Amino acid sequence: MATKTKKHADTAKKLENMAQVVVKYAKSKEDPGFDIPSRTLSNARFDEKKKIITMGESVQRRNFFNLGQAKKFMQTMLIASGCKELADQAKSTSIRDMYYHTKHTIEGTSENTFDDQSESDPIIEDLEVAITSLREELGLFAENRGAMVGPMTLVDNGDTIDLTRMGSGGWAVPSIVEDDIIQFKKHNAKYILLIEKGAVWNRFNQDRFWEKEKCIIIHGQGQPPRGVRRLMYRLHNELKLPVYVLTDNDPWGYYIYSVVKQGSINLAFESQRMAVPAARFIGMSSFDVERFGINKTVTIKLTDEDTRRAREIMNYPWFKNKKDWQKEIQKMLQSQVKLELEALSSKDFSFITETYLPEKLKKKQWLD
Amino acid sequence: MATKTKKHADTAKKLENMAQVVVKYAKSKEDPGFDIPSRTLSNARFDEKKKIITMGESVQRRNFFNLGQAKKFMQTMLIASGCKELADQAKSTSIRDMYYHTKHTIEGTSENTFDDQSESDPIIEDLEVAITSLREELGLFAENRGAMVGPMTLVDNGDTIDLTRMGSGGWAVPSIVEDDIIQFKKHNAKYILLIEKGAVWNRFNQDRFWEKEKCIIIHGQGQPPRGVRRLMYRLHNELKLPVYVLTDNDPWGYYIYSVVKQGSINLAFESQRMAVPAARFIGMSSFDVERFGINKTVTIKLTDEDTRRAREIMNYPWFKNKKDWQKEIQKMLQSQVKLELEALSSKDFSFITETYLPEKLKKKQWLD
Repeated sequence: MATKTKKHADTAKKLENMAQVVVKYAKSKEDPGFDIPSRTLSNARFDEKKKIITMGESVQRRNFFNLGQAKKFMQTMLIASGCKELADQAKSTSIRDMYYHTKHTIEGTSENTFDDQSESDPIIEDLEVAITSLREELGLFAENRGAMVGPMTLVDNGDTIDLTRMGSGGWAVPSIVEDDIIQFKKHNAKYILLIEKGAVWNRFNQDRFWEKEKCIIIHGQGQPPRGVRRLMYRLHNELKLPVYVLTDNDPWGYYIYSVVKQGSINLAFESQRMAVPAARFIGMSSFDVERFGINKTVTIKLTDEDTRRAREIMNYPWFKNKKDWQKEIQKMLQSQVKLELEALSSKDFSFITETYLPEKLKKKQWLD
Repeated sequence: MATKTKKHADTAKKLENMAQVVVKYAKSKEDPGFDIPSRTLSNARFDEKKKIITMGESVQRRNFFNLGQAKKFMQTMLIASGCKELADQAKSTSIRDMYYHTKHTIEGTSENTFDDQSESDPIIEDLEVAITSLREELGLFAENRGAMVGPMTLVDNGDTIDLTRMGSGGWAVPSIVEDDIIQFKKHNAKYILLIEKGAVWNRFNQDRFWEKEKCIIIHGQGQPPRGVRRLMYRLHNELKLPVYVLTDNDPWGYYIYSVVKQGSINLAFESQRMAVPAARFIGMSSFDVERFGINKTVTIKLTDEDTRRAREIMNYPWFKNKKDWQKEIQKMLQSQVKLELEALSSKDFSFITETYLPEKLKKKQWLD
């Protein structure tokens, strides 16, 4: 990625513009400052039309000559300057690297620019919303997690990757999957299947489910990381592929689906470029125990925390008015049990790929 | 992997032999039973010649007509039977799947075969040592974790993978990397570099360190999982490639190196097929702060737990008699600080790939 792309130039430009404003203030002997859209719960709302969580209009002023804001002002400038360096060098780096890169003791004091990464991470989020760039566009990534295979060829950083020939391991999904790095080439896929767990994804890969079903299978080892979510968003929007989500049957599974679909409240800004409102929840459903005659022995009793979470999720604005979702979660609360994907192995190792999922898809047993 | 290999047949045979012994006992109206080598600390020792942790000779008898052993006897048979099914179907599956597959309520009782995975996992370890098969040979895996790139071509489950053309994500290292699944083809690598963290591995991949240095770079997202360790073992032994380990400068980093090198005490049996006694610790060393003039601001104070762990590791049999290791850990205890790999970013984003590691390699600043 030593090659500089238009994206690097655009990001550098945005950061420069931000700095120019500050310079202008300084030159006219005014207090330098800028506005940061508020990333608070009260400034996040569910957009009923777009069906995603979006940010409202309220902003926070950040001024230099204000005792309460000066440190954050300086920190924002530091991170912005670090991101500018990255763009100029056509590099990307981890948010932890950025913390260390911008950390130093301020000359003549014993004060550090940042004491801990928990201080720099929110500043990165501030910067994202301030210049409306995803952190991936700023060249910042979190961690690599997840893998993908299926009937598709893509280009990753100049290398052509045939996703039908990735062996048992699959292609490791990178953290940054913007279109200057990843381009989709020919494909023959009918849909995308997101599988919560890597171990279950292995079963689907081993049984070559993606070949039989002509689908892309992807996992994020639990809650999918940003790279996986952003990639699904792009596959869904650019190639018009429907997305199905397969999780454990527990409140955490519902939540994973909810984030894929609507975004998360604390990162509302990102929803518009990561959320897939049309994503479908294919399972596991609380009704599947009866549907598939699953032995009660392999179910697990809900904890009090599970019950509390299930009730909370039931009241999410995007679930509240959906009869089928109310029935689904009601069923879990009523039966007081949850079920893991692996529990289907009590039937047969390949029950999930040979019977369970094909049948659910055929009978359209999904929730929207 | 629907194709049955010699390994599947061998495993099935071993499991069958185990069952035959039980049948023989039963037919001669004797109490059926078998011996399981003890996986206890007292039965693990450091083999000074082989330089790995090995198991001793002591065994535990497991009999059917013994109130204290009957349940474990039954559980061992169940897991063995599940593994036999896997081998016959030429499949592999997760240890969680195996738990569910063998879990049921015993007829006419309210007793479950297993109540929790914490009961089935040790039985799997018992079975491994009882028939001297790695769990990977039994067709059981834990989780997929880690990625790899470098100047090498390998075959993964019939697919040819060119590890110089894996883009930014890399090839996801599978859990099972035995030679019936993974075969090494041509390569041009001079060594293997294990990097503790995925985010740091990204930097090495992005800067194409593997191309310039002709090396294989691999990470396991923290403590490397079995797949990564077994793969390094195979690369090291089959291709005679030296292994360098790069971790954070903290007791956990020392421990990661120690496990790669000598194996772990609680899974002593696996050491002979996973440990790489010749692995070298390339960093980060407690002396690197001074060597590279790293700003003290980015070091982190040791916790009490760190100090305790460092002292413990200092006394490991394989470190105890090594002067350089004693000096290394002494230095950490004396300076009372630790350092993360990402801290090198305080110099420059690519300091680690352009200056730090090349210099350490050139000056042979590693520990054995």
